[in-house]
Amino acid sequence: MREIVIGGAQMGPIQKADSRAAVVARMIALLDRGADGGCDLVVFPELCLTTFFPRWMMEDQAEVDRWFEREMPNGATEPLFARARERGIAISFGYAELTPEGRHFNTSILTDRTGAIVGKYRKVHLPGHAEYDPDRAFQHLEKRYFEPGDLGFRVWRNMDAWMGMCICNDRRWPETYRVMGLQGAELITLGYNTPSVNSQMSDEGPEQRLYHSELSMKAGAYQNSAWVVGVAKAGDEDGHPLLGGSVIVDPNGFVVARAETEADELIVHACDMDACTFGKETIFDFKRHRRIEHYGRICSQTGVEHPGD
Amino acid sequence: MREIVIGGAQMGPIQKADSRAAVVARMIALLDRGADGGCDLVVFPELCLTTFFPRWMMEDQAEVDRWFEREMPNGATEPLFARARERGIAISFGYAELTPEGRHFNTSILTDRTGAIVGKYRKVHLPGHAEYDPDRAFQHLEKRYFEPGDLGFRVWRNMDAWMGMCICNDRRWPETYRVMGLQGAELITLGYNTPSVNSQMSDEGPEQRLYHSELSMKAGAYQNSAWVVGVAKAGDEDGHPLLGGSVIVDPNGFVVARAETEADELIVHACDMDACTFGKETIFDFKRHRRIEHYGRICSQTGVEHPGD
Repeated sequence: MREIVIGGAQMGPIQKADSRAAVVARMIALLDRGADGGCDLVVFPELCLTTFFPRWMMEDQAEVDRWFEREMPNGATEPLFARARERGIAISFGYAELTPEGRHFNTSILTDRTGAIVGKYRKVHLPGHAEYDPDRAFQHLEKRYFEPGDLGFRVWRNMDAWMGMCICNDRRWPETYRVMGLQGAELITLGYNTPSVNSQMSDEGPEQRLYHSELSMKAGAYQNSAWVVGVAKAGDEDGHPLLGGSVIVDPNGFVVARAETEADELIVHACDMDACTFGKETIFDFKRHRRIEHYGRICSQTGVEHPGD
Repeated sequence: MREIVIGGAQMGPIQKADSRAAVVARMIALLDRGADGGCDLVVFPELCLTTFFPRWMMEDQAEVDRWFEREMPNGATEPLFARARERGIAISFGYAELTPEGRHFNTSILTDRTGAIVGKYRKVHLPGHAEYDPDRAFQHLEKRYFEPGDLGFRVWRNMDAWMGMCICNDRRWPETYRVMGLQGAELITLGYNTPSVNSQMSDEGPEQRLYHSELSMKAGAYQNSAWVVGVAKAGDEDGHPLLGGSVIVDPNGFVVARAETEADELIVHACDMDACTFGKETIFDFKRHRRIEHYGRICSQTGVEHPGD
């Protein structure tokens, strides 16, 4: 048994006016709750230091850059790292990253129990659009404010397990899980900010969107025999509702813990990394069963090509 | 609206002693039921002309070859093709194929409304093992009796829609759906023979196995915005129970029809191919969102490689 007690630290809404200090205080409270509950690792959402700013159209780059972090840890987040170190808990969380070269990424990091960053991931599958779209009920400008991640999907050895990360919309793409599964991922953590309504189809409400979110994570877990921990930022941000539904999914594709609120809420499960072994050695023993000679289009072709095109 | 009324013709058990003529008579009865119900296309299971013979260890190749078809249509199946032609219904079904060169495949075919074969698929992801395994509760010798399919995952234009096929264990692999999705698949049909218990883990019973089957098909449908029709051979074959649970899944990943028995049973749904369009043009617009520069391992690497290996 290689048990890692994992806390999924769902966060309620963060308003535009909320300071990073106020947000970090909430994260520390969740971390403490996790530590008191025996957690080894606490996972926070995507872009969890601020409101989900890509819903706002901004023309002024200086205004955009206000939402980004220039280093990590920094002054605002150092108290979180310090508390994690003090309590001996690994953490993962997402933030908007502005590099010294001026590049913008939607990023997440993973630490070990000493607060040292052992892994960094930059979101590959950016949803939404780059220009103002008058036909949408609201904007989703991730393609405007970020460039696609340049680090790929990696896994790291941490706490005696193979851990990988992805972010939000990445979870809908089976390629995400598979690239990590091919590196032996036993745990995949992700945060998300998912609007409760589809900006392009108003009658697609929260139930259907929760179903899609969970369906994708359950399939990714089962088909790679890995734990998947998906953590939401939820609730009403300045009039824009975000889905909750944070879950911990076991390597069989079953939900073992699920958030019940749209507020700050910790879900906890003792995850045995050895539970990944049976699937990886039988039905999803990739070495014996995968047939890469027939997968070529997945890597060589981005969009649809009909036969005869 | 491009509506195709699809019948999923689940079949109850076929015993070793059952003749092909008896099986084809059952298929014709299901086809007639479909025709009476307005079906445009009727989908039958994998290897539906015989019992699921890979559960039996056979040393004598002549005994193995008894379960194979040397041409299609042939004498046994011609009455099925004739009835389909007569009623103007397209069909798809699976059978064991022995080629003139002596090659063995687990194959399915798709016809148009005139009974002409417009597509052939040979199963790529063969589950199980090639040698007798004394540690299993029963045998699953697909890797012994078949070679992996050599035709890849194709789609065909049929009845004003893009249609593809896969077979049984293929449905658990997201690569299957994606390769067809990249060719614009709007409908993916598949048949299966899935034992109700895991031969290597006796406490994994039918509920969990139905869940996995459905989870994979729902994710494949949603993530490629395509209809998926999965049709079982079900019930007790000479003491070996097979799962039922045939389903029609819509391009949103929701089950719209599900078999309730483990016998010959027709499930029917009027499937609008235009229902695929919204997903294909928004969240799963591959051209805008896929990032093939990070998918390389999927096509270049068969088994797991841990970092530093």
